[in-house]
Amino acid sequence: MALADVETPALLVDRALLDGNIAILAAYLQRHAPGLRLRPHAKTHKSPDLARRQVAAGAVGVCCQTVGEVEAMAAAGIADVLLSNQVADAGKAARLAMLAGSARIGACVDHPLQVALLEEAAQEAGTRLHVLVEVDVGGGRCGVATPETAAALAGMVAESPGLVFAGLQAYHGRAQHLRGFDERQAAIEEASRRAEAAAERIRARGLACDTITGAGTGSFAFEAGSGVYTELQCGSYVFMDADYALNQPDPQRAVPGFAHALTLLTTVISTPVPGRLVCDAGLKSMSLDSGPPSLALHPGLAYAGPSDEHSTLDAPPDCTLQPGDRLQLIPGHCDPTVAMHDWLVVHADGVVTELWPVARGW
Amino acid sequence: MALADVETPALLVDRALLDGNIAILAAYLQRHAPGLRLRPHAKTHKSPDLARRQVAAGAVGVCCQTVGEVEAMAAAGIADVLLSNQVADAGKAARLAMLAGSARIGACVDHPLQVALLEEAAQEAGTRLHVLVEVDVGGGRCGVATPETAAALAGMVAESPGLVFAGLQAYHGRAQHLRGFDERQAAIEEASRRAEAAAERIRARGLACDTITGAGTGSFAFEAGSGVYTELQCGSYVFMDADYALNQPDPQRAVPGFAHALTLLTTVISTPVPGRLVCDAGLKSMSLDSGPPSLALHPGLAYAGPSDEHSTLDAPPDCTLQPGDRLQLIPGHCDPTVAMHDWLVVHADGVVTELWPVARGW
Repeated sequence: MALADVETPALLVDRALLDGNIAILAAYLQRHAPGLRLRPHAKTHKSPDLARRQVAAGAVGVCCQTVGEVEAMAAAGIADVLLSNQVADAGKAARLAMLAGSARIGACVDHPLQVALLEEAAQEAGTRLHVLVEVDVGGGRCGVATPETAAALAGMVAESPGLVFAGLQAYHGRAQHLRGFDERQAAIEEASRRAEAAAERIRARGLACDTITGAGTGSFAFEAGSGVYTELQCGSYVFMDADYALNQPDPQRAVPGFAHALTLLTTVISTPVPGRLVCDAGLKSMSLDSGPPSLALHPGLAYAGPSDEHSTLDAPPDCTLQPGDRLQLIPGHCDPTVAMHDWLVVHADGVVTELWPVARGW
Repeated sequence: MALADVETPALLVDRALLDGNIAILAAYLQRHAPGLRLRPHAKTHKSPDLARRQVAAGAVGVCCQTVGEVEAMAAAGIADVLLSNQVADAGKAARLAMLAGSARIGACVDHPLQVALLEEAAQEAGTRLHVLVEVDVGGGRCGVATPETAAALAGMVAESPGLVFAGLQAYHGRAQHLRGFDERQAAIEEASRRAEAAAERIRARGLACDTITGAGTGSFAFEAGSGVYTELQCGSYVFMDADYALNQPDPQRAVPGFAHALTLLTTVISTPVPGRLVCDAGLKSMSLDSGPPSLALHPGLAYAGPSDEHSTLDAPPDCTLQPGDRLQLIPGHCDPTVAMHDWLVVHADGVVTELWPVARGW
């Protein structure tokens, strides 16, 4: 099928750019942090097909953010899946514990109630769950606030026969989108200090704390060089959001950038007056939470605004685009954009090569 | 199934509030504009089950914004469906023309290329499509800019054997969210003037222009009283977004308000420090384009911010909520929120009464 025959709106993945991004990160880590494990975040793509490509390139497994994603990845044969998140109800804990019969399944805790739920579910299923204590390293979302709380919770996990204490979840979400290279570096230095302080307190209780996992596409070079983190969770590098591309790159150019492998294919449906185009991609096919899509592939056009099923674009007066012409938008924020779609349309040389289902996971 | 057993995040529809909203609008129109037709916009709910309830309460049919929605509504037996939007490719035109074999199918145009595509598709399918010329009445999105262009396009439609010229699409999207009652009134007065000017020019060509359709939840009383509009397209009134509720109501209280029938059920998954809660609903289960969800059902809590699968909430220091407790958020913008979900969970008296599939329509 030719790309020109794909109905819009549709999410396109440029296979060459995708494979390039996977190779760029693998090469960087091999050179600069050879002992570090890469566990890419699958919440970016929700695609078992894509996850298998990451594992084939050296990833130890994946992270997920929902139990539905964990189920999709385990069913596709990914042998080591970490839920980098908390569950707080018995139903989801039971689903995780069941999956632990066929894969290594990890989950995070920051409260004794979550430990009790996971323990009960593992006992019931006759499996063992690998549990990480989440530490708030500056993100201000989940995670215990102090080394003492981390150590107490780690002890509770270690004393639970159905659970294995597996280390620390130490992801700093806010740091990813600090624009300045130095700002991001400073934020991760502080995150590393907090993670190390929690690990030391845990080790002082006689527990091993071998895994400290975190990092994202905006900051991975700092975690990789920290001497504290043992595992990286970058996800967005495979697709590369327009928003991430606004971060100041490494002034020394040692840290690689990534290509925009994901685009939203849309059709111009209306050209009502000179200077205005309307296309068929809106709030229901892309997330604008991190800003509008980039029109870098269409110089001269500017994004004016969205509605549910439309985007309005400003065009130069001599623009010759007509209803029926196609555009490719670079999403501002790939993860929630992908979650709106059922399929990733993979293409090379203007031809659709594969359709990858998105595990939307409801 | 008890509501308490529904896995989160999940979109809930309060059946009593929904039926109340449908009845409130029907009663208002019967009293104040008895000859006017109601054609609710199904892009709000994408639910054939809900559309049937609207038709049972007197609606003449529904509007849709995508061809996928039109297919779902026609397949469910809705006999009169208007695509209040343009199509600009042959594939979608062909799907519409095929549907016109079993239902009255309408579509909008604002460019000769769209007329040609619809005509070719109708000829090919051996059906007739009802075509409305869209007029830009102030929204600044699609729609012809002048009465002359409207009349020329109407003439082209009327001369196409596969098409029936059916009137004007005259929706003013921007007016819906003007906060002041008087501002919205003034905007719709201007929209009515523009629609009437186009209709007059069309009638001067000897064409009938019996249908002038438009209006939304924020402005329907003005279109209803305009003497110009013959059909209303309000959609959001069935669910009532938190954003719409910020509009200034009618100072005279003649125009009714609506209840928030749609809520997002979410579980508190983390209470990391006093004063902060984290729940499992984020950018992937609700759209924040029109502002954050309302916490009106949980006095004392305040919305702090989203991430992909989380929302962080500020709580009073004495808040007793724990991981596992449930909250109901009122979405800021219902339409794109619904489009993220596969099911509407209908409930009454704390029990799930029905599951309505969402025609996401990819």
